[in-house]
Amino acid sequence: MPATNRHWVLLQRPKGQLAESDFALRESEVPTPAAGQVLVRNLYISIDAANRAWMSPVRTYIDPVEPGGVMQGQTLGEVVRSENPALRPGDIVEGMGGWQEYAALPARGLHRMMRVHPLSHLMSGVGVTGKTAYFGLLDVGQLRPRETVVVSAAAGAVGSAAGQIARIKSCRVVGIAGSAEKCRWLREIGFDVAIDYKTEDVAQALRAACPDGIDVYFDNVGGPILEAALFQMRERGRIVCCGAVSQYDTGSPAPGPRGIPGWLVVRRIRMEGFVVMDFYQRRREAEHALSRWITEGRLVIREDILEGIEQAPRALVGLLHGDNMGKRMVRVAPVV
Amino acid sequence: MPATNRHWVLLQRPKGQLAESDFALRESEVPTPAAGQVLVRNLYISIDAANRAWMSPVRTYIDPVEPGGVMQGQTLGEVVRSENPALRPGDIVEGMGGWQEYAALPARGLHRMMRVHPLSHLMSGVGVTGKTAYFGLLDVGQLRPRETVVVSAAAGAVGSAAGQIARIKSCRVVGIAGSAEKCRWLREIGFDVAIDYKTEDVAQALRAACPDGIDVYFDNVGGPILEAALFQMRERGRIVCCGAVSQYDTGSPAPGPRGIPGWLVVRRIRMEGFVVMDFYQRRREAEHALSRWITEGRLVIREDILEGIEQAPRALVGLLHGDNMGKRMVRVAPVV
Repeated sequence: MPATNRHWVLLQRPKGQLAESDFALRESEVPTPAAGQVLVRNLYISIDAANRAWMSPVRTYIDPVEPGGVMQGQTLGEVVRSENPALRPGDIVEGMGGWQEYAALPARGLHRMMRVHPLSHLMSGVGVTGKTAYFGLLDVGQLRPRETVVVSAAAGAVGSAAGQIARIKSCRVVGIAGSAEKCRWLREIGFDVAIDYKTEDVAQALRAACPDGIDVYFDNVGGPILEAALFQMRERGRIVCCGAVSQYDTGSPAPGPRGIPGWLVVRRIRMEGFVVMDFYQRRREAEHALSRWITEGRLVIREDILEGIEQAPRALVGLLHGDNMGKRMVRVAPVV
Repeated sequence: MPATNRHWVLLQRPKGQLAESDFALRESEVPTPAAGQVLVRNLYISIDAANRAWMSPVRTYIDPVEPGGVMQGQTLGEVVRSENPALRPGDIVEGMGGWQEYAALPARGLHRMMRVHPLSHLMSGVGVTGKTAYFGLLDVGQLRPRETVVVSAAAGAVGSAAGQIARIKSCRVVGIAGSAEKCRWLREIGFDVAIDYKTEDVAQALRAACPDGIDVYFDNVGGPILEAALFQMRERGRIVCCGAVSQYDTGSPAPGPRGIPGWLVVRRIRMEGFVVMDFYQRRREAEHALSRWITEGRLVIREDILEGIEQAPRALVGLLHGDNMGKRMVRVAPVV
């Protein structure tokens, strides 16, 4: 085992748009796990829009990343040393390992994963991403067969999974994404309609695509697209608030969509935010369903893997600019 | 029976703030009920902030009031002639009788009410108002004992009922209202804290009054007060969207609260709009509970009754300026 642990430090809170220069790659000693902890060698770091929100001084659902501290991130890793009988060396675990090669973590914050091939699916289709789509759509969204579903950031990891799950559940699915190439891919994987928000009027396109209204809007973006969807919701429609990528990478919080709360009353709309970890007592159920759909070819998983921990800041800055299709992650170590 | 039916016509859609001059009092013949209809003599007209929203050209949960047409309004009336076996002369009915002395209406749109004393309670505590508070708080808000509840427009008809029902359900209740007199009354009827939004910083006052956060926010106002409450919500808190009085009486819709949708995600907050009629299959349950609480002295009903149909426009314009305490209504005819 090498003696050094390369890790990315957040140098300062970004004031506006995040830049690669907000981070520095440093070296420290590989940590020694304390009693109850395990040492994890990170294999993959998940790159998510939410990472940007964690840099805000306000606590989100995790403590804010502090300047000078290791950048936080969801990881998939291998236990290499254990001071806790619950986990053994060789176990593959999902957790918050951060942007680094090694992490000493309490075993209770880690989830042991089944081994699948490729292992990267534990970061994408059956990982946090797939489970977010699964619980968001089915539990928060209370999706029913033959409903009309709209998904934003639809070519992203969560969005592409959410749209395909809606199709599996016999729904009509409209995706909103930011390029002709992304829209083409959405149609390939079964979206009924794909709207390019960079070239189309989203409100008008939604009226055309959903003349009878939207039953479930799975929102990853917030902002003007949320507003456009809101005014096209059917009575008793549900807006699943999964993320707000249009809002994270800015200096000051924008006002919310017009029509809130008035339109929620008029149309009896429910909006609800969630974090996938809230559903983790049922994660096996989701993992089994997602694995089955992937094996059956009904859920197509696209991965966007950058090689080497050096790529992490670039990967995140690019994701916030919409560079990726499918699940973006950084491979930290060769997978054995 | 007189031959004439006095009725208020909406002359034009108000562009900004509603004015009494937007209405004209006209006379027509008392209508003759068609087959399946009944003729109702209106006793009370309910004056509600939502009346203003109905004047917008956009359909709400009822068709917009058209210029030149009779102004819409919830009414309590007595059946004076029936062409439908479901209702008999003498029956007291709740319905959409409009701002007029007589209305010919299909029986299926009317609800026969039990007779209570005073009859005006069928407009207030056990009427639409009380039922709105009941279903909004208990069903939409999913209120649990010992939670912390905040109510805006708390000295209004719905707000004062909602706050008292929360107290009956062993919750801690904070009311927000627009004068020292209103706040004094809220404390008299059992609110734990009353905040005067005209003289206090609402965000700061909510932090002081709810240091552990808000479980249920019963929102009648929208706008900046909704935003202040939003940022003080606890995890898995529920925002009951009942009305948006701060938004109705303006020319253009304001942007929504900051923090939507981001804060909904972070705190896993649910916002849900409702209209009381959605719960009318269970209205007897609510009416019985409300009547019992009133009889037991646990639910204090304050009524603000203006005499004579001539008062209707003035009553509504004043309500939109916050003139009233408790349930505002207009008495159209002497109650026998």
